[in-house]
Amino acid sequence: MNKITLLIHCNDQPNIIASVTHFIANNSGNIVYIDQHVDSEQNIFFMRLECEFESDSFSVENFKESFSNTLVDKFNLEWRMYAADKKPKMALFVSKYDHCLYDILGRYNSGELFLDIPFILSNHNDLKSIADSFKVPFHHIPVTKDTKHEAEKKQLELLDSHNIDFIVLARYMQIVSNRLIDKYPYKIINIHHSFLPAFIGAKPYHSAYKRGVKIIGATSHYITEELDAGPIIEQDVTRVSHAHSIKDLIAKGRDLEKIVLSNAIKLHANRKVMVYNNKTVVFS
Amino acid sequence: MNKITLLIHCNDQPNIIASVTHFIANNSGNIVYIDQHVDSEQNIFFMRLECEFESDSFSVENFKESFSNTLVDKFNLEWRMYAADKKPKMALFVSKYDHCLYDILGRYNSGELFLDIPFILSNHNDLKSIADSFKVPFHHIPVTKDTKHEAEKKQLELLDSHNIDFIVLARYMQIVSNRLIDKYPYKIINIHHSFLPAFIGAKPYHSAYKRGVKIIGATSHYITEELDAGPIIEQDVTRVSHAHSIKDLIAKGRDLEKIVLSNAIKLHANRKVMVYNNKTVVFS
Amino acid sequence: MNKITLLIHCNDQPNIIASVTHFIANNSGNIVYIDQHVDSEQNIFFMRLECEFESDSFSVENFKESFSNTLVDKFNLEWRMYAADKKPKMALFVSKYDHCLYDILGRYNSGELFLDIPFILSNHNDLKSIADSFKVPFHHIPVTKDTKHEAEKKQLELLDSHNIDFIVLARYMQIVSNRLIDKYPYKIINIHHSFLPAFIGAKPYHSAYKRGVKIIGATSHYITEELDAGPIIEQDVTRVSHAHSIKDLIAKGRDLEKIVLSNAIKLHANRKVMVYNNKTVVFS
Amino acid sequence: MNKITLLIHCNDQPNIIASVTHFIANNSGNIVYIDQHVDSEQNIFFMRLECEFESDSFSVENFKESFSNTLVDKFNLEWRMYAADKKPKMALFVSKYDHCLYDILGRYNSGELFLDIPFILSNHNDLKSIADSFKVPFHHIPVTKDTKHEAEKKQLELLDSHNIDFIVLARYMQIVSNRLIDKYPYKIINIHHSFLPAFIGAKPYHSAYKRGVKIIGATSHYITEELDAGPIIEQDVTRVSHAHSIKDLIAKGRDLEKIVLSNAIKLHANRKVMVYNNKTVVFS
Repeated sequence: MNKITLLIHCNDQPNIIASVTHFIANNSGNIVYIDQHVDSEQNIFFMRLECEFESDSFSVENFKESFSNTLVDKFNLEWRMYAADKKPKMALFVSKYDHCLYDILGRYNSGELFLDIPFILSNHNDLKSIADSFKVPFHHIPVTKDTKHEAEKKQLELLDSHNIDFIVLARYMQIVSNRLIDKYPYKIINIHHSFLPAFIGAKPYHSAYKRGVKIIGATSHYITEELDAGPIIEQDVTRVSHAHSIKDLIAKGRDLEKIVLSNAIKLHANRKVMVYNNKTVVFS
Repeated sequence: MNKITLLIHCNDQPNIIASVTHFIANNSGNIVYIDQHVDSEQNIFFMRLECEFESDSFSVENFKESFSNTLVDKFNLEWRMYAADKKPKMALFVSKYDHCLYDILGRYNSGELFLDIPFILSNHNDLKSIADSFKVPFHHIPVTKDTKHEAEKKQLELLDSHNIDFIVLARYMQIVSNRLIDKYPYKIINIHHSFLPAFIGAKPYHSAYKRGVKIIGATSHYITEELDAGPIIEQDVTRVSHAHSIKDLIAKGRDLEKIVLSNAIKLHANRKVMVYNNKTVVFS
Repeated sequence: MNKITLLIHCNDQPNIIASVTHFIANNSGNIVYIDQHVDSEQNIFFMRLECEFESDSFSVENFKESFSNTLVDKFNLEWRMYAADKKPKMALFVSKYDHCLYDILGRYNSGELFLDIPFILSNHNDLKSIADSFKVPFHHIPVTKDTKHEAEKKQLELLDSHNIDFIVLARYMQIVSNRLIDKYPYKIINIHHSFLPAFIGAKPYHSAYKRGVKIIGATSHYITEELDAGPIIEQDVTRVSHAHSIKDLIAKGRDLEKIVLSNAIKLHANRKVMVYNNKTVVFS
Repeated sequence: MNKITLLIHCNDQPNIIASVTHFIANNSGNIVYIDQHVDSEQNIFFMRLECEFESDSFSVENFKESFSNTLVDKFNLEWRMYAADKKPKMALFVSKYDHCLYDILGRYNSGELFLDIPFILSNHNDLKSIADSFKVPFHHIPVTKDTKHEAEKKQLELLDSHNIDFIVLARYMQIVSNRLIDKYPYKIINIHHSFLPAFIGAKPYHSAYKRGVKIIGATSHYITEELDAGPIIEQDVTRVSHAHSIKDLIAKGRDLEKIVLSNAIKLHANRKVMVYNNKTVVFS
């Protein structure tokens, strides 16, 4: 059984759903999941489909070509198609905080995540033993102001040599440069430890404490050029009070950060996220 | 522009989505919303569609007939079709508590609810002045043990004479008999003041207090023969502590009850809810 | 039985709790509630006490004087003392939106709120009929750019003549000037329809939609000179998705606004809120 | 600096707060935290105090004796007193699931938990490598129907030899017998994977799926003789929909279980929990 996942967006126009579903039926495919969204402010249509092809002679490449010739031009579609059984490859960037790393590796170990982690990369050596205990290769690439350019070159080579599909910054404490962002557009997932757009930048728990908010949050988003301003994938919050110190906020925040980041990873790895005009459409 | 909403469920089988979407396209309809769900435990397929027909000659009745002849038999479909601009008629049953009534009428007044309320019915006269201030007819049908049968007869006549589509029990403190339930299957919405299936029956806040739970809830569900055991439409919860008295739980619960019930009403009125095997599929 | 509520803050120092509780015991008072907080960043001590005095000869005024002479100077206390059975007087400012008004008046009617509402004030006449149906006096004081100064004078006279203790802006769509703020410091409660400090200013739901957040919120805070920057009393949030339009956000937000504002009112009216350095301590 | 934590409960009666605070002041102690609660249904008074003694000559034992002689008899107090710097010793019982174990050990490692873990005990060997990687001793005590009695004997010896203060069942899949419960009353913390009292017993996610609830939960409670009926320490919930399979519920539930259990552990270890009449008072 061949199963594919198809993601489409285009200007909204009549008959897209019918045309696509008809095309799949004509190719002996059976749609097992369909979800769609129309952004009526911007007049953009989004769709996510999963379909199965029983025939032994089915070829994803032929189907792609046929799809492209038949529908892509007609509706001026932007599209991505995946063999559903092909796991994406994820690189994990960490620094010194271990809570997100433990959370991700625990899930990875238990089979909860549909992805491969060819390596963990860090600018410090502190978390190597955790990587070792989970038997995931660990690369230490130090970054200083002077070596930043060189370090990025090494990072890019490593990413390239492993055919990495997307990158997760699990409390990686460095600003990622445009070289990486341009190479992996909407494929670098960050966790920011505030309820964005509140408290952009450094030390958000300190800012939250100072402002006296009654709820704190964490936000997972795609990295773009502008700091903490990329498309939001997932957010969550928890209640706090005057009785919580900054240290308490940081501890409570760790629980948010790890759950929110892991949820964002799952959504991305399962190809449930589409990006348009700096916002996400997140299918269920 | 004619717009219809179509709800389908049937045994899961190949090509349903393609066949239905193809049929609509062939009838010059444009699908503007589609969502589907497969219950893989029970092998049941559910779908909700909205489609538009531009032609002046479009007739819902003809389309229904054609749909029935072409697809219903083929796939053995259970289905419902609505003209999207036709508001459902809702009867509102109340007793002595006013918080849900205010909440519903406030929303009704502001145009938030897509429905008509031909009348409010109560076994007491206490809330008549609220109905009056919102200019909604109020019928007082007292219910005692001896007059219950007769009262229900009057209720049924009233419901019938107004072509009521569904009934909302907004803290109506009477057990509804099978005569009404059979006449309005999965069309009587109740609000139960607990997080079902915990604390079924009377005085759930007292039971929650006694058990020492740290979270209380409210549940909106369709009434079935078995008490508080019907399909759940919507639930919500809020945090409590040892410091809250029963009176506090009741006050906090009121806020849950009114929001949960109003959400359930909106979902039902917008034809977003399907029921199968005592569970709901709630489309977004 | 005389019951008082006492609120204290001062620089943190040894023996405050023991001294105050000892003083009360020496005056034949019985403490029935005590809660305290130390802000260790700023080294400030906060305490809230409720105590009962059985003696018929107890006089709040004498007790205040004695308390002042004995403890206030010694610890350099800031303090407020209330007879617990004295309801505060609240003025309700509204404009055209009715959801918060219905919510507050519904609770007021049911006895949930420990306060009196001598009048509702609005710059428009739209909500007069709601005030009438709840039998609360309604004053229409129009505000234009030219008449703003004169309108505020009338407002102040009205507030003064009713001995108003605090003001609630229930979606009152006008900027309140410093004349009122200075007269009622930390006594004007606003509801802002965002999760502050995100989306300060006008049209926060539009901004939230544009940013693509996955959670929206509402914030109740004391009005200060700086727009939407006063001490936060209460916040709450709800989950949204790409499928929600701005109109949906506004509708979901209304439910947050009314609950959050009513909770803030209850906290203030029950003298549970202390303000220091633009943050609140909210006792349970 | 000596710091102690004092927990008291007794029948509610006048002057308890004043008497205790006065006693501490007379012993040159400074109260740095006080919280109290009156259960007015049962007329029970609860208090939690933290106080500091600067004197070098301060002795916890002398203070205890003096406290006992002076106040315990007078008010018929139930009380516990702890040196605040003395970490409790926690035994961790696991079976085959690793998510709670990773979560607890991750926090333990980072210094978030105020406790010592002398050993991990399991009826299976599966999680030994995790214990090893965190360098916590691991004891494998298999349990079969025939060896249950013998196994418990070994468990009790192990607990005894390490002076264990409390036990955490981190998804330990065995029913704990009364021998342990009686030895460690309100000192065995369990995590149940449902929102108790809903779905008591085995396979709660399956039951939740079958009932079609819209929210699932997890509950941490003290083990008592009656299954899943002990005093609740902490609960949390998350939203689910028809689209979630049982497998999805289990995965989402894991995130609840680990956070809820860790929060309960922190509350217990910090001596914030009091138990009375099968309910908890949880101080902040």
